[in-house]
Amino acid sequence: MTANDAGLATSGASAVPVGKTPAADPPVNKTAPVADATTIVDGAAAPPRLSHPLGPVTPGEITRSAALIRTCWPEGSVCQFRAITLYEPAKAELIPYLAAERAGESVPAIDRRVFVVYYVGPLDALHEAVVNLTTSAVERNVRLGDFNHPSANGEEILAVERAALAHPDVQAEIAKLQLPEGTQIVIDPWIYGSDGVKDGEFYDDKRVMQCFMYMRDPQNSSEPDSCHYSFPLPISPVIDPATMELVRIDILPTGHDETVKPLAPWKPVAANEYIPEAQALRTDLKPLHVDQPEGASFTVDSFSDLGRLIKWQKWDFKVGFNQREGMVLYDVHYDNKPLFYRVSLSDMSIPYADPRAPFHRKAAFDLGDAGAGIMANNLQLGCDCLGSIYYISGVLSDAEGKAMDMPNVICVHEQDAGILWKHTNYRTSRAVVVRNRELVVQTILTVSNYEYILAFVFNTAGDFTYEARATGILSTQPVDLELSQVPHPFGTVVHPGVLAVYHQHLFSLRIDPMVAGHGNTIMYDEAEAIPRDPKLNPFGVGYMVRKTEIDTSGGYDLEPARNRVFKIINPAVHNTVNGAAVGYKVMAPPMQPILADVDSFHNKRAEFGDHSIYVTRYAGDELYSGGLYTNQSRGGTGVRSWADRKESLKGGDPVLWIQFGINHIPRVEDFPVMPAEVLRVMLRPVNFFDKNPAIDVAPSTQGVNCSVALNGSVESELGGLNLGAESKKAGDCCGASNNP
Amino acid sequence: MTANDAGLATSGASAVPVGKTPAADPPVNKTAPVADATTIVDGAAAPPRLSHPLGPVTPGEITRSAALIRTCWPEGSVCQFRAITLYEPAKAELIPYLAAERAGESVPAIDRRVFVVYYVGPLDALHEAVVNLTTSAVERNVRLGDFNHPSANGEEILAVERAALAHPDVQAEIAKLQLPEGTQIVIDPWIYGSDGVKDGEFYDDKRVMQCFMYMRDPQNSSEPDSCHYSFPLPISPVIDPATMELVRIDILPTGHDETVKPLAPWKPVAANEYIPEAQALRTDLKPLHVDQPEGASFTVDSFSDLGRLIKWQKWDFKVGFNQREGMVLYDVHYDNKPLFYRVSLSDMSIPYADPRAPFHRKAAFDLGDAGAGIMANNLQLGCDCLGSIYYISGVLSDAEGKAMDMPNVICVHEQDAGILWKHTNYRTSRAVVVRNRELVVQTILTVSNYEYILAFVFNTAGDFTYEARATGILSTQPVDLELSQVPHPFGTVVHPGVLAVYHQHLFSLRIDPMVAGHGNTIMYDEAEAIPRDPKLNPFGVGYMVRKTEIDTSGGYDLEPARNRVFKIINPAVHNTVNGAAVGYKVMAPPMQPILADVDSFHNKRAEFGDHSIYVTRYAGDELYSGGLYTNQSRGGTGVRSWADRKESLKGGDPVLWIQFGINHIPRVEDFPVMPAEVLRVMLRPVNFFDKNPAIDVAPSTQGVNCSVALNGSVESELGGLNLGAESKKAGDCCGASNNP
Repeated sequence: MTANDAGLATSGASAVPVGKTPAADPPVNKTAPVADATTIVDGAAAPPRLSHPLGPVTPGEITRSAALIRTCWPEGSVCQFRAITLYEPAKAELIPYLAAERAGESVPAIDRRVFVVYYVGPLDALHEAVVNLTTSAVERNVRLGDFNHPSANGEEILAVERAALAHPDVQAEIAKLQLPEGTQIVIDPWIYGSDGVKDGEFYDDKRVMQCFMYMRDPQNSSEPDSCHYSFPLPISPVIDPATMELVRIDILPTGHDETVKPLAPWKPVAANEYIPEAQALRTDLKPLHVDQPEGASFTVDSFSDLGRLIKWQKWDFKVGFNQREGMVLYDVHYDNKPLFYRVSLSDMSIPYADPRAPFHRKAAFDLGDAGAGIMANNLQLGCDCLGSIYYISGVLSDAEGKAMDMPNVICVHEQDAGILWKHTNYRTSRAVVVRNRELVVQTILTVSNYEYILAFVFNTAGDFTYEARATGILSTQPVDLELSQVPHPFGTVVHPGVLAVYHQHLFSLRIDPMVAGHGNTIMYDEAEAIPRDPKLNPFGVGYMVRKTEIDTSGGYDLEPARNRVFKIINPAVHNTVNGAAVGYKVMAPPMQPILADVDSFHNKRAEFGDHSIYVTRYAGDELYSGGLYTNQSRGGTGVRSWADRKESLKGGDPVLWIQFGINHIPRVEDFPVMPAEVLRVMLRPVNFFDKNPAIDVAPSTQGVNCSVALNGSVESELGGLNLGAESKKAGDCCGASNNP
Repeated sequence: MTANDAGLATSGASAVPVGKTPAADPPVNKTAPVADATTIVDGAAAPPRLSHPLGPVTPGEITRSAALIRTCWPEGSVCQFRAITLYEPAKAELIPYLAAERAGESVPAIDRRVFVVYYVGPLDALHEAVVNLTTSAVERNVRLGDFNHPSANGEEILAVERAALAHPDVQAEIAKLQLPEGTQIVIDPWIYGSDGVKDGEFYDDKRVMQCFMYMRDPQNSSEPDSCHYSFPLPISPVIDPATMELVRIDILPTGHDETVKPLAPWKPVAANEYIPEAQALRTDLKPLHVDQPEGASFTVDSFSDLGRLIKWQKWDFKVGFNQREGMVLYDVHYDNKPLFYRVSLSDMSIPYADPRAPFHRKAAFDLGDAGAGIMANNLQLGCDCLGSIYYISGVLSDAEGKAMDMPNVICVHEQDAGILWKHTNYRTSRAVVVRNRELVVQTILTVSNYEYILAFVFNTAGDFTYEARATGILSTQPVDLELSQVPHPFGTVVHPGVLAVYHQHLFSLRIDPMVAGHGNTIMYDEAEAIPRDPKLNPFGVGYMVRKTEIDTSGGYDLEPARNRVFKIINPAVHNTVNGAAVGYKVMAPPMQPILADVDSFHNKRAEFGDHSIYVTRYAGDELYSGGLYTNQSRGGTGVRSWADRKESLKGGDPVLWIQFGINHIPRVEDFPVMPAEVLRVMLRPVNFFDKNPAIDVAPSTQGVNCSVALNGSVESELGGLNLGAESKKAGDCCGASNNP
């Protein structure tokens, strides 16, 4: 994990967001001026063709919003926009709208509002505004106080890289390394984090950036995709992005303690590349195609110019896209039954374990500091998924308030997930097998060195899953070559002279539920042994389920040893079979809470990092569990603070925040690029339906699946039993009404 | 979950094991006398064509073993065989053999031994024998003492069903229910469990069976696949299988407490069927084919007549099959590096929560009481997996000591598992994506009402996973109709009048490791915050990893809050990059330990149910964590007892037992057949390789994957952004050496 903004940085440089491949995307001009964008989407100032309160902001709305903001300031004032994004209507307005929409009735009018974060004048006056496009009014426009800093800006960060590299003091330090002729230096600027340190004139209430330096393989300096993380350098300049001045240069400790040694000549080490042309590739992995001869089973429609309505196997939901959260789901139903009002990844925090300055500031908030939307990859056909794939594109704002196209940021496809259910009646030998089909709505973000593959996964049994895969390249730092074979206290040596420090990945999934309608309650079950009792439990084998309702906002923990299972229930709706309140349960992997101590800024800022479950009472502006502004934040503005209001949840409007993650103790195997760590959070119906919801899925049969038996060809050569092939005639069919 | 033996029962009746579909398997005579079997495999008394110390016993070896046992007894003695299976050589013999085999050198001679469990004379004299086929000698032949009972026998159990149903006292009780004319009664006999109760003449040291009774839907009595678990009856006869006499009839409590009410006339309820012809099937799920145009990437060879050697993507391993464990892996290597000497599912226990007699005895050991091999389904092409599939068949013994063919008990196929790793260089926009290909070696067992889908999964990154899917039909019992809508203390009402009691599924995976060779150590890591310290940890963000070596046999727990990670390491082999001892880590889901109290027989018998991890010192005969004989066992013969020897593990020969499972609190959605609960245990290399082992897997490209973009067809109709289709020309290629 490293600076989200670094990703923005260079992407911003060419105004092509991370992962965008210009050549793959001819119709879009790289610098996408509004005029171009609008020829693709709609008239610059024209209203959207298809509007909806949840529709992502259109290019026209972006430019109109920027224009309206500029009218607030004297002619010639320079505005630098950091976010121009949908300001979603309050629940009170939206719920009736969505109800009417679903009922096919006429919908109430809702003013269209846009949320704007921008600097005006010199980069020290950060403003937050709400623009009403329906009335063309700027309804709110306030200057923000101390410790409020925006998410990163691409061009600015590229300028930081240039300023750092160009500064004579930095060059003087680099010279001490006596790097080979023609060495290419690569800089990853990072969000500065927070430590509250005052250092002479400097205090970290000022927004600055810390730069980590690397070099390309000097044997291969011309290879732009050389893995520079194999060559970390011990020099870390700190830059003031408002003035591009050098604040200071930190020299990195490269031993086992905080000692900083004088810079010494660089010692050659081998490269460690991930690009295929640097490998002797395997040649024996044969192609595997997913073939859908009748096409996909889902449909995609537009609920707004840029919003997509997806229907698949009784599911229907709206997909939005914004700069911060990337993809967002709204109004999720199964079989026309309401389940989730809004679901998104709220934020993530990646605190690092190295206590030594300046590493103690490494704590990235990939959504709050940068954005899952602006970081989204341009997904390529046949690379990121298999089968029949639908791609959704987006539009975001650039620093000038122009629309920037984000092609193919979300892909939608189906996948087989093995057997969903099976039963063989041993009395008749008849087997019925039903396979698990999944619909995957996926986005992939690159945050400089690191990748997250994020997906909402739906299946035919009413299960709803959020999947996160962590991959990409570890954030590395230098360690003395002669220490490479010695255990390091704070990390793992993954390559000679290269240290990958321990760190946690803490994800926070926000779920605003409407299970069987609004007015939900969060509760948990625990399985408890019944005490021995001559009458009630004479043999000591009995146990029961204890139910606990969460009636006050707060943070809660998973307790696997108690089989604690959190559930969203609707106390007003009862199962027709057994009378239980209908619900969905949360199946989340336990995580180790944040290890940074409660007084540390890592802990204060990652307000969601200390509990697997938070429950708060709904409030319109509380969408981001780390707070609205995480860049150099001080804490006190996120989910922990909201939960600490200890509000009653009797009102029946809870928001569920599910935290999950990994403590990443790096392996050598995680370098130069790491095999994905896969995390899944499943929401599963509990006494919500009246029977197995997938009971009506057609059985799995060879007639439909057209599989191939290898035994005929393989075993006959090998001798031995050859029964397999005999029973492999096409058309064999389990689940048919008679034995084949 | 219900009686494994019930599965055996009726299957035994036709001598066709569970799930075998005679019609699908023409060449095999259902009653497969040796003469028939041997025409398929080899000469009855002839030696195997291709012998190996780990090769499963052949038909010829089965019949020879049975014949040699009979020679120990007077002419005319009746032997009933319960197991005739491979008696594996001791490690001391086998390790040199496998080393020589791998080195292509001549292998030492190892005597071939077979393990036999049988009754002789009346069914009260259980014997255990070891037959040496090399010397034609019966080397051991002992009568077993009290509390040792064999796994179930099919024909016997069918006889129990018949005896129970035919008994006039049982008929008299059934008559009180006044069932509709023509009602079909179905009986599931269960292993009796243990409770130590003496009841007049009766003491449960005597082997008996408890029968649970159901009926078919009276509206549809002629449907043999009607789900009788929707119609449980409150009568439970207990039968002595040695004499087929009725021991007593238990009447089941059907309320909320232990009160047993007089039998009353049955009240009609609706059926709840799972068979497709009873459903209005979905018609909008379109076909999804897995097409492997160049075939599969794996090869299958025979290391013995019935043993299979599989090679795939640097992996090689031997697959065996036996009555108790089903599939077993031996001699697992990656890239010719030793990893695992032997891996198998050792046992599972399913203790139920209902404390009321007679339900307090419900505790099934699906491997020990019956067998994952004898229960294995006959897998059907295109039903249980997709793509190009290889099927492995087996041979087991029947009660007469004849060979019984077990066709298609294991299937082998590849699957795509999404993205394994990806990185996008934001400076060049070049993305490299590598997909995760998995090899799945799968078996499916049916234990009467219930199914387990069990698989070993290998991937291209050196990861080794054991997957268990729990599906099938819940074991049900009657509950008063008028209580259907009232919360039940011990279970969930899943259908009117039908109760599914809480129960735990406790799996025990046995791993005999040889990571980088023999002489391994088991240890665990924990992540620990570093205390605040002005010098070492001035900002409170630091943490370190504490390592603990397990030097004494015992039981251990997962501690997610401490990020406790168990590892198998080889202290003698060090990573070339960082010098760490090479290892594999265990990624297992936490489970709730068995809830039955320590003095209960459920707990005493499930010796593996109280800890996620057990580590013991290797002993040749310690393969089954619940003990060799679990049927009506008393405990004291399994992994807990072995661990309690507190042996030193300094010798470097540990065996790792990984427990995992679910506490199944049934949902209405789990009936009439349950969507699978999926559990995965992964063993992952940690500083074993010198870099990402999948770095040499070819990138994922459209040129190879041939996916289909839907945007061209879909979005053009919808209007809105249509960038997607533009970039979807065939041949788009991420990971190519230049941008597309």
